[in-house]
Amino acid sequence: MNFTYFIPTRILFGAGKLNELATCALPGKKALIVISSGKSMRANGYLDRVIDLLKKNGVGSVVYDKILPNPVKDHVMEGAAVAKTNGCDFVVGLGGGSSIDSAKSIAVMAKNPGDYWDYVSGGSGKGQPLVNGALPIVAITTTAGTGTEADPWTVITKTETQEKIGYGCDATFPTLSIVDPELMLSVPPELTAFQGMDAFFHAAEGYIANVAQPASDLFALESIRLITKYLPIAVKDGSNLEARSAVAWANTLSGMVESTSCCISEHSIEHALSGIHPEIPHGAGLIMLSRAYHDFMSDKAPDRYPAMAAAMGVDISNLPLEKQPKAFVDALATLIVDIGMADISLIDYNVSPEEAEAIAANAWDTMGGLFELDPYRLDITDTTSIIRDAFVK
Amino acid sequence: MNFTYFIPTRILFGAGKLNELATCALPGKKALIVISSGKSMRANGYLDRVIDLLKKNGVGSVVYDKILPNPVKDHVMEGAAVAKTNGCDFVVGLGGGSSIDSAKSIAVMAKNPGDYWDYVSGGSGKGQPLVNGALPIVAITTTAGTGTEADPWTVITKTETQEKIGYGCDATFPTLSIVDPELMLSVPPELTAFQGMDAFFHAAEGYIANVAQPASDLFALESIRLITKYLPIAVKDGSNLEARSAVAWANTLSGMVESTSCCISEHSIEHALSGIHPEIPHGAGLIMLSRAYHDFMSDKAPDRYPAMAAAMGVDISNLPLEKQPKAFVDALATLIVDIGMADISLIDYNVSPEEAEAIAANAWDTMGGLFELDPYRLDITDTTSIIRDAFVK
Repeated sequence: MNFTYFIPTRILFGAGKLNELATCALPGKKALIVISSGKSMRANGYLDRVIDLLKKNGVGSVVYDKILPNPVKDHVMEGAAVAKTNGCDFVVGLGGGSSIDSAKSIAVMAKNPGDYWDYVSGGSGKGQPLVNGALPIVAITTTAGTGTEADPWTVITKTETQEKIGYGCDATFPTLSIVDPELMLSVPPELTAFQGMDAFFHAAEGYIANVAQPASDLFALESIRLITKYLPIAVKDGSNLEARSAVAWANTLSGMVESTSCCISEHSIEHALSGIHPEIPHGAGLIMLSRAYHDFMSDKAPDRYPAMAAAMGVDISNLPLEKQPKAFVDALATLIVDIGMADISLIDYNVSPEEAEAIAANAWDTMGGLFELDPYRLDITDTTSIIRDAFVK
Repeated sequence: MNFTYFIPTRILFGAGKLNELATCALPGKKALIVISSGKSMRANGYLDRVIDLLKKNGVGSVVYDKILPNPVKDHVMEGAAVAKTNGCDFVVGLGGGSSIDSAKSIAVMAKNPGDYWDYVSGGSGKGQPLVNGALPIVAITTTAGTGTEADPWTVITKTETQEKIGYGCDATFPTLSIVDPELMLSVPPELTAFQGMDAFFHAAEGYIANVAQPASDLFALESIRLITKYLPIAVKDGSNLEARSAVAWANTLSGMVESTSCCISEHSIEHALSGIHPEIPHGAGLIMLSRAYHDFMSDKAPDRYPAMAAAMGVDISNLPLEKQPKAFVDALATLIVDIGMADISLIDYNVSPEEAEAIAANAWDTMGGLFELDPYRLDITDTTSIIRDAFVK
C-alpha cells in the first residue's frame, strides 16, 4: 500500500462523444491534426468531421498525414516543424496508437530544441529532461488497442539505428481524450481481435507486475472481465455498439493500468518477435506467445492468477487451490478460440523454433527493463524456453 | 456508457509518504498552511513536520489556524487576505475535511476579486465564473472521511444567512494530495467510525446514483468492500496500520466516486438533520438514517443493491433474487454493530419524531438537487416517512 496515482487526462467516453469537440473547452486556437499515411481517416470521413467540429469551436487546423504503422522519428521532427511553421498551439492525434503516439512526440518537439532522441532514455537516446514541456495533446481514438489515450506513453522508432523506444512524462498525458465507440464500428474483425488482445495483455501484465497498485488492480481486472465477455462479440459482429463500447472502455482501462502499473516481459518478448519478423502484428505476437508465457509464469508466481481467472468468469471456488492459477491459462485458450485466433501459429508466420535464443536475446537487449517488473525473475534460459514452448502451445 | 472521467490530482499514498513533501515537485515557493483552530495538528507534531519538510524543499510558509469544524466564509476571506499579504503562491490544507475544504476556497479567493459568495451557486450565491482560477492546492489528510483529497468539492457556511453550500470546479481539484495513514493512527475510535461511515455512504450513494458511471462503480464497490472489512478493525485497534491504510484508501476511492458520480438524497436529509441539530456529527447522522433510507430505497430501486451486498461479503448467489437487495440493508446493520454504533439513536440526540416533516422540508429546501440523482424519485411524503422510520430502525 505505497503508490502514486496520477492520470490527469480528461476522458470523454461514449457513442457520439466526438460531436462534443465542437463545444468542449480546447487547449488552443490552432491544431495540428496528426493522422496516418493510410486512407481510413479520410475514407471514413473522420478527418473532415474533426476539421469541421474544430472549426465550429473556433479552432483552425493543419493536417500532418504521414504517420506509419510503426511511427518514426523523422516524422516526429517533420510534424513538429509543421506545427511551428503554422503556429499550432496544440496537437490532435486522430486514429490508432501510431497516430496518437506520434502526436505526443510531435507535441514535445514543437516546444523543445534539438532532436527527439535528446530526450529519449535508453539506446542512443540522451535522456535529457524537457526544457519547455510539450504542447497540449488531444487524443481521438478510432481503435481499441493501445490505451494511449489514458497514459503518457509514446513508442517511436529511430530508423537509422533500428531503435524502437518508449517515452513518457507528465507533459505527454493527453489533456483531453475522446473515446467514441462509433468510430470503431468499421474496424475489421482481425484487427479488432489483435487490438483487443493487446489491451487484454496490458491489463493482465499490469495485474501481475510487481509494481501493481490497488488502483491498477481495479482497472486491470475490470478490463480482463470486459474483454473476455465482449471481445468475441465485437469480433463476430463489428456493428454491435454495446460490445464495441465495452471493449473501448476496457482498452481505456488498460491505458489507465499502463499509467499506474506497467507491462512486463511478455511485451519485451513480443517486441523482439515482431521486431525480427515485422509482418507479425503486435497483438498476434502476444496471442501466439501468451499461453506458453502464462503457463510458465503461473507455475512460478501463481498468487495473482486466480483473481484473473475469476475475472474471466471461471468459478474458481469450485477448483482446488493448486488448480486455480492454471484456470487462467485455460480461460485464455478459450478466449483465443472465441475470437477466432486458435489457428494462428508462429510457423505460419515463418518463425522457426531455432530462432528462440535470438528472440530471447533481443528481448533482453532492447527491453530488458521490463523483466525486472515480472512477478518471478526470468533468466535468458527461461525466456528461450517460453519462446520454444510457444511453438507447441 | 456515456460519461466524463477527470481526476487530475496527483495522489501520493502510503505510510510515511508525508516525508516526500521534502523532495517532491511542489507548485510554488511559499505556502499558506491552513489548519483548524483545534490543537491536534500542533499536539501531534504534524504542523511542525510540514513546515520543516517544506523548508527542506526550499519552500517558505505562513500558518492560518482558525478553521472551525463547520468552516465559515469569513475565514475563507481572511485566509485569502493572509495569503495575498504574505505573497503565498500555493495553499496547503492540513487536517480533516474542514481544513482542506477551506484551503480550496481560500485558494479561490486569493486569486479572485470580490466575495466568495459571488462564485458560489445556490442560495444567495451569485454563481459567477472564476476570473482567475485558483492558487494550486496541496491536501494533506489526517482523517479518513470526506474524500476531499480526491475531489474538487468544498463546503463552506455563510454564517449570516445560515447557508452551507458546496462549491467545486476544475481549479479546486488539489494539484497534489498526500494520504499518509500514519497520520491517522491517533484518530479516536468514535471519530474513526463516524468518518469511515461517511466515506462508506459516499460510495454507496455514488453507486446507486442515476449519474453513476463505470469508473465510479469500480471505486464505489471497492470502497464498500474495504470499509466493511477494515473499518471495524480500525475502530477496535486504532494502531493497526494495515486497517488504517485500507480505510484511508477506501476514503480516497470515495472521493474519486464524488469526482465521477455524486451523493444522493441521503446526504440531503442528513445535512438537514445536523443543520437543525448541530450536536449530531455528520457520520452519526448518516448511520442513524441509513437503515431506514436504504430499506425504503432498496424496495423502490432494487437493481444495484445486490452488487453492494456482494461487496460487503454476502454470498448473494445463495439467496433468492427478491431477497438480494435487502441483504445490503442487513449487512449494513451488521457493520453498524461491528463498529460499535448499534446503540446511537436520534432520541438520545434529542431529536423528536415530530420533527420529521421539518427535517424533510429543510432537506428539500437546502439540498433538493440531490433528490434528482436518486435511483427512485422520492417526494416529500416519502422523505418524511424515511425520517420517521429512522426512529425505529
